[in-house]
Amino acid sequence: MSSSFNKGILVTIVCEAVLQERLIKLLIKLGVSGYTIVPVKGAGSHGKRTGDIAGYNTNIEVKTIVTPEISDQLLETLKQFTKTHALIAFRHNVEGLFD
Amino acid sequence: MSSSFNKGILVTIVCEAVLQERLIKLLIKLGVSGYTIVPVKGAGSHGKRTGDIAGYNTNIEVKTIVTPEISDQLLETLKQFTKTHALIAFRHNVEGLFD
Amino acid sequence: MSSSFNKGILVTIVCEAVLQERLIKLLIKLGVSGYTIVPVKGAGSHGKRTGDIAGYNTNIEVKTIVTPEISDQLLETLKQFTKTHALIAFRHNVEGLFD
Repeated sequence: MSSSFNKGILVTIVCEAVLQERLIKLLIKLGVSGYTIVPVKGAGSHGKRTGDIAGYNTNIEVKTIVTPEISDQLLETLKQFTKTHALIAFRHNVEGLFD
Repeated sequence: MSSSFNKGILVTIVCEAVLQERLIKLLIKLGVSGYTIVPVKGAGSHGKRTGDIAGYNTNIEVKTIVTPEISDQLLETLKQFTKTHALIAFRHNVEGLFD
Repeated sequence: MSSSFNKGILVTIVCEAVLQERLIKLLIKLGVSGYTIVPVKGAGSHGKRTGDIAGYNTNIEVKTIVTPEISDQLLETLKQFTKTHALIAFRHNVEGLFD
């Protein structure tokens, strides 16, 4: 593929919607300039769920493109959330039009 | 990128919503522990559509992270669906926080 | 991974919803046979926003699988949109069941 495009790491986080504000604060703290959020349905055996409290069991998918260093920091910081909430996160390389 | 994270294959399936229950049964049969589902709009020339029966032409995007072996089995099994329904499926490597 | 599957480039475009019709026309012009569209929430510092005109500040995520050549043409053509609208686009390799 052509190399005239920017390189970055796309990080995808799937978690309970209750974590949304905390994730956004984390992204801002790490200097992340952009992200998207989509509500998702799903099932999973990952992490520990808050439980069946109404409104708490909705999931969101958060995506952001960052540098390799920030993706390391982001994933490391997210490890703490997996102890108390349902959360998975993964990354892979992308290239294209972004800052 | 750091190698202190798990490795897996993200498989994405885009298909008619009518296939949702059959896909979930297939994932459970393959021992898949988690997946997300998002309704999507779209257009495509892939496979054979059920047609214009009301309510049948909505699409869903199903995503799951699995081992290379299970991704092979999943894609092989999905081939049968492409003969009768609109369905595409694709995979790529990811790493991160997941089981 | 097994090589019995098709290879392609997944291109993801995240932009203001007001661009949807223009993007679809561009995809058709490039001979793209299928795509999906999902509404997304988000924040970003990319490009120049149309502003706070009601209904114009919603974002969409458009995904399509194409050849390497078409992904080059698509990304090159999208550069013009980043001058006047909020838009990012990125690509990576996938393999699977698609034409």
